[in-house]
Amino acid sequence: MGRDHLESIVEEVMKQMSEKNTSSEVPIGVSARHCHLNKESLEVLFGKGYELSEKAPLSQPGQFAANETVTIAGPRGSISKVRILGPLRSAAQVEVSQTDAFKVGLKPPIRQSGDIEKSSPVTIIGPKGSIYLEEGLIIAQAHIHMSPQDADNYKVKDGDVVEVTVKNPQREVSFSKTIIRVSEKYQLEMHIDTDEANAGSIRTGEKGTLKKVEPSYV
Amino acid sequence: MGRDHLESIVEEVMKQMSEKNTSSEVPIGVSARHCHLNKESLEVLFGKGYELSEKAPLSQPGQFAANETVTIAGPRGSISKVRILGPLRSAAQVEVSQTDAFKVGLKPPIRQSGDIEKSSPVTIIGPKGSIYLEEGLIIAQAHIHMSPQDADNYKVKDGDVVEVTVKNPQREVSFSKTIIRVSEKYQLEMHIDTDEANAGSIRTGEKGTLKKVEPSYV
Repeated sequence: MGRDHLESIVEEVMKQMSEKNTSSEVPIGVSARHCHLNKESLEVLFGKGYELSEKAPLSQPGQFAANETVTIAGPRGSISKVRILGPLRSAAQVEVSQTDAFKVGLKPPIRQSGDIEKSSPVTIIGPKGSIYLEEGLIIAQAHIHMSPQDADNYKVKDGDVVEVTVKNPQREVSFSKTIIRVSEKYQLEMHIDTDEANAGSIRTGEKGTLKKVEPSYV
Repeated sequence: MGRDHLESIVEEVMKQMSEKNTSSEVPIGVSARHCHLNKESLEVLFGKGYELSEKAPLSQPGQFAANETVTIAGPRGSISKVRILGPLRSAAQVEVSQTDAFKVGLKPPIRQSGDIEKSSPVTIIGPKGSIYLEEGLIIAQAHIHMSPQDADNYKVKDGDVVEVTVKNPQREVSFSKTIIRVSEKYQLEMHIDTDEANAGSIRTGEKGTLKKVEPSYV
């Protein structure tokens, strides 16, 4: 086989590979440490009949940052002014970074939001009381919220794990265990925590490139 | 061209590509925030004629963590117990993470150690005095120390930029702007800061995979 022939075949193969490895941009939102409460925990922390008040809407429809904050604590320390996100859920849950976890001396697993079974215990302190969650402290796994229409566009489905690369003038990082979460109610946005953001000098609003590597090429 | 023929060619091309992208493991060390001093700054902070005392040797030959620590400060706050690394250098320099930089309210650039021209100012406070560095605060760029022999093995040279991937059970991150630093006096080790470590759940002693991507395939 001549060199020209080989080169043209290689070009075609590379083209086909790049088409199978679909690439697309996704906007990024940086999630600071925060807390979700249920009705029972809200009433212990803030008093009977208390209701959260909205400070600002979040990117996901219906979600909001509340004016209320709590202190979280563990055996090595505490962190104050941890924002509560609304609306209320069925179970209380606290999401922190690994940096925060070291500070309070706890060992939360890396999980999807809501998956708190056998996660870390944590103490939450409010103005009217305190609760000790036997489980509920996690580090959030990087994830991308998207609608079914977005999922079609990106050729991914709920639960898929993709790699997202974010390039900056001085840092370039890839997060290879980013999970896809699909729902009609989701607005397209990748969520990373403050450790991941700082490791890549990433600010909310910047964009990453999603790459779905076909299993046959992994 | 038949399907079998195409597949065998693809296999050969993939094999050749993987050979050109040389891959190898490198041990990782996580660098916490630290401070390098020169003779003048040491004497202002600790007193005339003061000398650093060694607490523990570092992985790089001749380098050590001193028993002495300082406080660093900026317009938004301070961080105490910042370890001094010895021996003394020709210029004082402080290396922090982006997380630390937000805490003290300063904006250090991402630089190689020693490259402090027009970097951020920072205040250093010791038991006998305080100094205000007009430049000297940086965030260290991820880098790999290696000997000329290691460089031959990895097929890289001083100043090359490589990608290093670190896989953990739950997080997998790649640092694509990792710089190669070669010297006869260097021991093989990749240095990342605490933000990069926490973003990948990486501890000192774990290993990353170095990948030198040939320019023709970038």
